[in-house]
Amino acid sequence: MSNQWVYAFGAGRNEGGATMRNLLGGKGANLAEMASIGLPVPPGFTITTEVCTAFYDNGRKYPADLEAQVEAGLKHIEAAVGVKFGDNHHPLLVSVRSGARVSMPGMMDTVLNLGLNDSTVEGLAEASGDARFAWDSYRRFIQMYGSVVLGVDHHRFEEIIEGLKLDEGFTEDTQLTAQDWHRIVHGYKEMVAQETGKPFPQSPHEQLWGAIGAVFGSWMNPRANTYRRLNDIPANWGTAVNVQAMVFGNMGEDCATGVCFTRDPSTGEDIFYGEYLINAQGEDVVAGIRTPQPMAQLKAKPGEVSMEVAMPNAYAELVEVRAKLEKHYADMQDIEFTVQQNKLYMLQTRTGKRTAAASLKIAVDMAEEGLIDRTEAVRRVNPGALDQLLHPTLDPKAKRKLLSKGLPASPGAASGIVVFNADEAEARAAKGEAVILVRIETSPEDIHGMHAARGILTTRGGMTSHAAVVARGMGRPCVAGAGGVQVDYHAQALAAGGQIIRGGETITLDGATGEIFVGHVAMIEPQLSGDFSTLMGWADEVRRLKIRANAETPLDADTARRFGAEGIGLCRTEHMFFDPARIGAVRQMIMSETEGGRRDALSKLLPFQREDFAALFRIMAGLPVTIRLLDPPLHEFLPHKDEEMAEVAESLGADLATMQRRAAELAEANPMLGHRGCRLGITYPEIYAMQSRAIFEAAILVGEETGNPVVPEIMIPLVGIKRELDITRAQVIQVAEEVFAERGTRVEYLVGTMIELPRACLTADKIAGAADFFSFGTNDLTQTVFGLSRDDAGKFLPYYVEKDILPKDPFVSIDVEGVGALIAMAAEKGRSVKPGLKLGICGEHGGDPASIQFCETAGLDYVSCSPYRVPVARLAAAQAALNNVKST
Amino acid sequence: MSNQWVYAFGAGRNEGGATMRNLLGGKGANLAEMASIGLPVPPGFTITTEVCTAFYDNGRKYPADLEAQVEAGLKHIEAAVGVKFGDNHHPLLVSVRSGARVSMPGMMDTVLNLGLNDSTVEGLAEASGDARFAWDSYRRFIQMYGSVVLGVDHHRFEEIIEGLKLDEGFTEDTQLTAQDWHRIVHGYKEMVAQETGKPFPQSPHEQLWGAIGAVFGSWMNPRANTYRRLNDIPANWGTAVNVQAMVFGNMGEDCATGVCFTRDPSTGEDIFYGEYLINAQGEDVVAGIRTPQPMAQLKAKPGEVSMEVAMPNAYAELVEVRAKLEKHYADMQDIEFTVQQNKLYMLQTRTGKRTAAASLKIAVDMAEEGLIDRTEAVRRVNPGALDQLLHPTLDPKAKRKLLSKGLPASPGAASGIVVFNADEAEARAAKGEAVILVRIETSPEDIHGMHAARGILTTRGGMTSHAAVVARGMGRPCVAGAGGVQVDYHAQALAAGGQIIRGGETITLDGATGEIFVGHVAMIEPQLSGDFSTLMGWADEVRRLKIRANAETPLDADTARRFGAEGIGLCRTEHMFFDPARIGAVRQMIMSETEGGRRDALSKLLPFQREDFAALFRIMAGLPVTIRLLDPPLHEFLPHKDEEMAEVAESLGADLATMQRRAAELAEANPMLGHRGCRLGITYPEIYAMQSRAIFEAAILVGEETGNPVVPEIMIPLVGIKRELDITRAQVIQVAEEVFAERGTRVEYLVGTMIELPRACLTADKIAGAADFFSFGTNDLTQTVFGLSRDDAGKFLPYYVEKDILPKDPFVSIDVEGVGALIAMAAEKGRSVKPGLKLGICGEHGGDPASIQFCETAGLDYVSCSPYRVPVARLAAAQAALNNVKST
Repeated sequence: MSNQWVYAFGAGRNEGGATMRNLLGGKGANLAEMASIGLPVPPGFTITTEVCTAFYDNGRKYPADLEAQVEAGLKHIEAAVGVKFGDNHHPLLVSVRSGARVSMPGMMDTVLNLGLNDSTVEGLAEASGDARFAWDSYRRFIQMYGSVVLGVDHHRFEEIIEGLKLDEGFTEDTQLTAQDWHRIVHGYKEMVAQETGKPFPQSPHEQLWGAIGAVFGSWMNPRANTYRRLNDIPANWGTAVNVQAMVFGNMGEDCATGVCFTRDPSTGEDIFYGEYLINAQGEDVVAGIRTPQPMAQLKAKPGEVSMEVAMPNAYAELVEVRAKLEKHYADMQDIEFTVQQNKLYMLQTRTGKRTAAASLKIAVDMAEEGLIDRTEAVRRVNPGALDQLLHPTLDPKAKRKLLSKGLPASPGAASGIVVFNADEAEARAAKGEAVILVRIETSPEDIHGMHAARGILTTRGGMTSHAAVVARGMGRPCVAGAGGVQVDYHAQALAAGGQIIRGGETITLDGATGEIFVGHVAMIEPQLSGDFSTLMGWADEVRRLKIRANAETPLDADTARRFGAEGIGLCRTEHMFFDPARIGAVRQMIMSETEGGRRDALSKLLPFQREDFAALFRIMAGLPVTIRLLDPPLHEFLPHKDEEMAEVAESLGADLATMQRRAAELAEANPMLGHRGCRLGITYPEIYAMQSRAIFEAAILVGEETGNPVVPEIMIPLVGIKRELDITRAQVIQVAEEVFAERGTRVEYLVGTMIELPRACLTADKIAGAADFFSFGTNDLTQTVFGLSRDDAGKFLPYYVEKDILPKDPFVSIDVEGVGALIAMAAEKGRSVKPGLKLGICGEHGGDPASIQFCETAGLDYVSCSPYRVPVARLAAAQAALNNVKST
Repeated sequence: MSNQWVYAFGAGRNEGGATMRNLLGGKGANLAEMASIGLPVPPGFTITTEVCTAFYDNGRKYPADLEAQVEAGLKHIEAAVGVKFGDNHHPLLVSVRSGARVSMPGMMDTVLNLGLNDSTVEGLAEASGDARFAWDSYRRFIQMYGSVVLGVDHHRFEEIIEGLKLDEGFTEDTQLTAQDWHRIVHGYKEMVAQETGKPFPQSPHEQLWGAIGAVFGSWMNPRANTYRRLNDIPANWGTAVNVQAMVFGNMGEDCATGVCFTRDPSTGEDIFYGEYLINAQGEDVVAGIRTPQPMAQLKAKPGEVSMEVAMPNAYAELVEVRAKLEKHYADMQDIEFTVQQNKLYMLQTRTGKRTAAASLKIAVDMAEEGLIDRTEAVRRVNPGALDQLLHPTLDPKAKRKLLSKGLPASPGAASGIVVFNADEAEARAAKGEAVILVRIETSPEDIHGMHAARGILTTRGGMTSHAAVVARGMGRPCVAGAGGVQVDYHAQALAAGGQIIRGGETITLDGATGEIFVGHVAMIEPQLSGDFSTLMGWADEVRRLKIRANAETPLDADTARRFGAEGIGLCRTEHMFFDPARIGAVRQMIMSETEGGRRDALSKLLPFQREDFAALFRIMAGLPVTIRLLDPPLHEFLPHKDEEMAEVAESLGADLATMQRRAAELAEANPMLGHRGCRLGITYPEIYAMQSRAIFEAAILVGEETGNPVVPEIMIPLVGIKRELDITRAQVIQVAEEVFAERGTRVEYLVGTMIELPRACLTADKIAGAADFFSFGTNDLTQTVFGLSRDDAGKFLPYYVEKDILPKDPFVSIDVEGVGALIAMAAEKGRSVKPGLKLGICGEHGGDPASIQFCETAGLDYVSCSPYRVPVARLAAAQAALNNVKST
């Protein structure tokens, strides 16, 4: 069998193209593609990835017919350029570069100027008329080849240059003459012969095969192997080798080399963005010895010389290339070029990396320019990156002094004075001060302080700790689990790395990086430009999943609507219980030993809850509102300290001992798995009765106010057994009938359940019989499926993710294999008995793009997430819908 | 369509039989059966359960042809007895009794003497020659019919008798004459007419249809409905009605009535056991007005007259009947009979209820007598009841004073002095005192005290609290969660119901009932008779499941072998860490901040652990021993109180503050879902390394000692992700190779995993790739599937079981629908990739018969349970195997 192992490109003979990335690698495929659309690419050829595979399959031997094909490839180059490889007068020089499907660190990269030897260097001097250039090129070649192909330590080369400079009293390389470079070449060759035991190869063919062998050999070196293992890249993908005629940006003042983007990768602005250097080779642009100059004159600062001005012809040609590339690739490109004696050559093009803001602007601009269609624009923007556009961010130019680092728990940046408790945070915020609430960890009692604060810092807990979850929900920047920071409440101070910050001093948090800075750092306010809403509009046109928000305060509900939420998917009623005006009655209820006592206390809470719900119904104006009845165990509402306990006892007219006894009775070994959710509703039916009454009364009230009927969705938490839902549902229905009879009117309503326990998933066909909807509580489901407490996972989960035991934090992105399997099972079982059963999710995962993709595939009806994640979810849902259309 | 609605029995015309229980009810089917095997049954007929169903299906109307069939049935009785229903001279009297498939409280039971009226009563007087008997029978009839058929309050009847006795100055019914009864009948009739607005029915046919209607009507009364709902009895089963010729045990001194068992239901002894009364009707035997006499002379006490002596002919006949019945039914029977004028009549037979001891003896005896085969004997004994045979029990005759009651957490009875802490329990037990350890709840630190105590009492926690689980494992009687008892550690006293018991005073616990008694109560030691081991031997012949024990101490392992365990299924290595000689090193390990420090501390534990394992290997002598590596979170090993903490700090040379800080770092919100199991093994690999080394060194040691190779089974706990098992397995293998190299020898070993998380079940096909066996940890699996903490469930789980939200405590008996579904899934997935994968369970469920049935069906290889449950498990496994053979 005879295979094509070598694919030519350039000079009118393009055997490859962009679609052949697997065979030719990314670089080779794009070189052929550029050449095929008429761009000026120096001619060359690509040795395919299949050669690499064959090489390893056959005990590091090349296919028999490879040599002939490489020779033919060289002939193609020689014919195109008109000079010969190894010719002593007009030598052809080539570059040899690796190029796998994906860019991969650890592999051999590039050897330039290959083909030079003691004879051809003279020919190059002659042909170019520049002996210094020729000898410099030769020494560059020996240095590169010597280190990457022959394995000589690169310090050995530097020593020789430094030695000569010392001898001559030079400080800069530019001071070296042709003669000097000649001497250095001599030194290099002696040193290489000594190090390797063999003279430096003089045969250009031997050089070429040496470089090809080095590329293939580097595919299996330890660093490349490690990288592939970590990134799940199969070893049998192999790498390609690109051999290409050299062009020189360093042959004189009419030469240049540059690296640039077709648009501004930072802002997305439609302007040439990048740098070039006159009379330089590619490595000089990045080496930092000379200062690169801007491409476009518009971007030139005083004293800078843009390429637009310095090389107007080459620049004009490049502008055409840019248009051609963007049109052809329909995306912003990251390109490398060389100008040799005023002639432009393209050496590389690839899709350019960009910031979130640029990504958004480029996608919208390109759609409006007609380069891509709107669905493509929707696909182009990474939803996860949107988050950073919705919050203030630190000014990248601002000075800063790092104090410590924690987990990037909720994005955005905030500055404020350090305050150590929630009450003080609220009091100082009320006086107009910007505060940062600093706690070892937060609890539901701190909610009012978190609301009042500009940002939250905790020293314990993970990405899904109470602080992190609540902060994300509120859109407050949060750095959580900053283990390097010690908080001393007593001393009202925090310490990190030997530095102490006292209460009242200012710090700045960057919730996107987890960094904590001393003092104030300047910020940039978010620009929710027209592009943002344009793209959101396009996303909304293609998505199938509805997006709701998790919200319980009017502020959150407003934010959610502003960001485009289509309802509330989770209103956690317990958050409403911590308000100082209510917590007294809540505690009275908890302390009561009798149902009557509890009913008395609950009757005080009724008007508050009714107003809570009425406010939400008003804001959501007919959009669905799902209200979860009380979920957490009652002890969460009791104070933790003796002195607070005493205060509460006094206010309730109880003695401290009774209070402590009751608190001890309520204490639990594992509150997550304790007396909570519908278990409370079953053992204390009066609690759910009060909440149901508040919901129905509010629904009637707002319906009458607005003339727009409210259809509340009542959600029973933590159901694991169908009878639990039967019983609590019957309670809700009974209260509904009572209220309807009292008011002489009725409202429609739904009663559904959270599916958040494995048993609920396993018996979803039974539970569906009593449920109008399922809402997957993926936080608790993840906890129970993994047997993993969110509050405690911080001790080992980061290690698990770091060591790749888990690919991702399962509280951030749904564990498709485990948790996902149960959700899919529950969805299928539920709909097997109720085909139209409404399904949603309301865990933290509702705002995670990968999880949203899962929800789309599993056929859910909606996701519900923190208000600030709503735009992320809208875009992710659109992409998920597009992906699923594509895959079906 | 014409149906047979009525089935005759007796007098040679038996249309039914024992197999027709669904159609004829239990009573009717057995009457026909007895008659058909030639026993003297008064003739009668049964109206089928289908009539009941038709009655309700047709708006409470009888089938059209029923009346004719009932008339024919009456004719059959009349012909057999030779007297006529309603005949004024020789009237036929009948009884009317209900009889459903299963005996059911709440339904109408019996009307006797039906057919009497103002005329036939005279005929009865005449025919019997006993006017007092006739009028007494008539008044009994009016009273019974009046209350159960006509709904007259039974007090109204008693008032009339009491009034007359008052008038006459009588104290006993026996003082009343025929004349008196006549007057009472008159009073009854007047009262009934007044109450019901209608005269008492004089037509025997009207009486009969009234009684039939009352039986069918009572099938749907509220009490019967409730009972059916609670016991899952479908309403459409219906009840039958039995109409039968009356026979009279109260017609004179040659008459009698009796209720008896064919063997002693308390001991199982093969002797007639029961009571009879001369000249009495059935109700008199149970009413307690006269003292019933024993059946067999052997059972007669001084002053008693046995039936054997008083009525030798009837008794001899009854002995024949007994043999015939036992032979026919192949089981011990509970029978009712009447002797009328020296002639024996059988009125009922049914399978007799019996104690566990009797059940065992009867099953073995009957198998040895050839009445049943051995597998049937194995089926006959309730495995759950065996438990009570293995422990001392309270002498039922002993006097006792109840103090309070808790949950029957671990069977057996124990007396001892009250002690409130584990150390004191150990110290006093060492001095030979019998102690009862009383704690609010227990923790692993109390283990030595629990071991030293005769019994354990806790005031908190459920059937699966720490105290309950550990006590069952040790075979110590335990009363748990006695909420009515207040323990005051400070005052060293407990209080219940106003009574105070101080430390040092004696109490007695009955772990089988949960009762707590003041002082000492006499006990009976268990008799593990030959019958016990005979039955166990038969069980072992038929069972497929292997039975292992959960054991870690030599004592437990010895007990387990004595009870027939075939290996250790779960050795919880952490129990070995609490020993006073070791806990210091354990705490030193925990307090170390460095791996080196931990390794130092662990090296002190190594010799202890090695000897632990060696001891188990020696005792188990080649039987498999599964050792679970460290499972609980490290904070469980730290002391809870400041003073203890200070002690520990001193002994470790650390300061208290450091110790407290480390303890605070280790504290967890939900320890059940925390940093434990293989998560410890991964983050602190040196712990598992030490334990693995101890296992391999011990295995080599004991193998060399005994010449019998030891094949340890190493079990990794809490795996949820396959990589966790990959990593820990690799660690174990590495240590094995190190030890083998050091010792110059190798042992075979297995490395498997607990399957105790939903995620492990869902991904069992992946995990199986790295596991030599799976052992289902059903305790933790139940906790995570339900989201239910064992330690906290006591607050609502009892309520759930009481209210039938859950049929059983899922920690006692596997929740087949939820937990079982995951186990079945894991078994299937595991074996899909490894067909021979060894599967077992090692939770508390391993000793529960219903759970063992599930394990048999799911195809597991073994169950492992507390040593004291091993016999229960052996028997249950045998029954499960028999059931599965039957059902396939």
